[in-house]
Amino acid sequence: MDAVLAQAAARARGDVGARLAARLAGAAPALASLEEACRHALEGGKRLRGLMVLESAGLWDVPEEAALPAAAAIEALHAYSLVHDDLPAMDDDELRRGRPTVHVAFGEATAILVGDALQALAFEEVAAIRGVPAERALALSARLAAAAGLRGMVGGQHWDLTIEAGAASGDLRAIAAMQALKTGALFEWSATAGAVLAGEDPKPLAAYAHALGRAFQIADDLLDATGDAATVGKATGKDLAAGKATYVGTLGVEGARAEAGRLAAEACDALAPFGARGDTLRLLARYTVSRDH
Amino acid sequence: MDAVLAQAAARARGDVGARLAARLAGAAPALASLEEACRHALEGGKRLRGLMVLESAGLWDVPEEAALPAAAAIEALHAYSLVHDDLPAMDDDELRRGRPTVHVAFGEATAILVGDALQALAFEEVAAIRGVPAERALALSARLAAAAGLRGMVGGQHWDLTIEAGAASGDLRAIAAMQALKTGALFEWSATAGAVLAGEDPKPLAAYAHALGRAFQIADDLLDATGDAATVGKATGKDLAAGKATYVGTLGVEGARAEAGRLAAEACDALAPFGARGDTLRLLARYTVSRDH
Repeated sequence: MDAVLAQAAARARGDVGARLAARLAGAAPALASLEEACRHALEGGKRLRGLMVLESAGLWDVPEEAALPAAAAIEALHAYSLVHDDLPAMDDDELRRGRPTVHVAFGEATAILVGDALQALAFEEVAAIRGVPAERALALSARLAAAAGLRGMVGGQHWDLTIEAGAASGDLRAIAAMQALKTGALFEWSATAGAVLAGEDPKPLAAYAHALGRAFQIADDLLDATGDAATVGKATGKDLAAGKATYVGTLGVEGARAEAGRLAAEACDALAPFGARGDTLRLLARYTVSRDH
Repeated sequence: MDAVLAQAAARARGDVGARLAARLAGAAPALASLEEACRHALEGGKRLRGLMVLESAGLWDVPEEAALPAAAAIEALHAYSLVHDDLPAMDDDELRRGRPTVHVAFGEATAILVGDALQALAFEEVAAIRGVPAERALALSARLAAAAGLRGMVGGQHWDLTIEAGAASGDLRAIAAMQALKTGALFEWSATAGAVLAGEDPKPLAAYAHALGRAFQIADDLLDATGDAATVGKATGKDLAAGKATYVGTLGVEGARAEAGRLAAEACDALAPFGARGDTLRLLARYTVSRDH
């Protein structure tokens, strides 16, 4: 990872992690074990989405009291989605971020409730945004709900399960449309958050997120096909085993790498209006396609 | 049920149900089965919380474009909580509102996702509030997240499961504190929503909700102890089987009825500042302790 990006990412991890930990602390004794499970779910991770929020906010000098809660919100929401996706009834994964998944460590009922609590925490964080007109925070909340719900992430996850069960087409076109909901919607929310908070046009950042999301997914395919679980931090080879169409299966390893590189360049081009201020977001797009976990 | 209350409740059911149905309609074909499961989860129910929102909004003539989304929000959130509470890993119930629970009808993975989508829908509805300053809608969103999350409903549900597993005290004091989180927090949100939207002091309505919530719980105990599943619309006798302390077990059937009546009167007294405008909320408090389902 480039040094400038590494520094920005480390700062985002530190600030977002500290904020989320503070929001969890101090629950009543009867809630201590649920709090601990929530903490487990929130720890670790690359915080790419939170970093995207902070960097997009930085394009317009959005105050930290607006940007940081938004970054914490998307990381809480992302963490909830991982906890629920890992459940036995869903993807049934035992390893996440290199550690036992929440239901393995704390039981299934607790894992369901952890996800539920973290989704609520995400919206609590958006509602804690200060330093910008309340209309903008409310718009960001509306966008988060839409990106997370039936027509966004949750819909995408359901569609993915339907494809895996063989009850819907798993061709590359369907996979791409499914992933645009499952992961693309939250990427778009993250990248456009700064524009919404600044009252500016979110379109260039939406274009950036769109290309980056597709690049990210191809990189995920490459990791699933060529990475090992210890480095990636979660099970690999799953798509192949599930018989799903992948970019690697369709384009080959080299073809997929080339397509990911092309999309990363497209993402960078979308940042042209921001000049040098968009450099960290450009580094992030290039990192997305070269990461090994 | 009193005729005035019945009319207000029927109107709330109609308006809230129509709004929620409209919000679900029109998802992409790939999402149709998830949409159908969401619809199943949202149908039926007494809509007591939505009615409380509409009636509290009516105390200050809060416009419908503010009150109705808030009422729809709390019913979406309540519906999500029922879907997740009914899951095999949680309370493992097969009957709800007189119909098969979502996981029985649509499978466990879909039920988890339905709950997740409906929680997002709840916050989408709050963010759709118009006709009042955005600050108030944002405050209502913050209050909903707090009432729903770790320190509210979700915490209460986890605490309840801990008590049922014998891992925490199940005496009446603990049960009351647990229920204040599990059901009391959303009652309070519902009753105070009108005040928050009107920019008025929510305290009298919080006091009303506090007494009504406890009365509601005692009534639930009475139904669990004396009702039959066909009338109540869900399994009965579960608290007794789980060995949990109940108001009926502690006070006896007649003692519990008297205490519920006392609390309903206390709830009515809290509405004194509103004079005759609070009459429907008073009828609701009295109905709460006399209902048979």
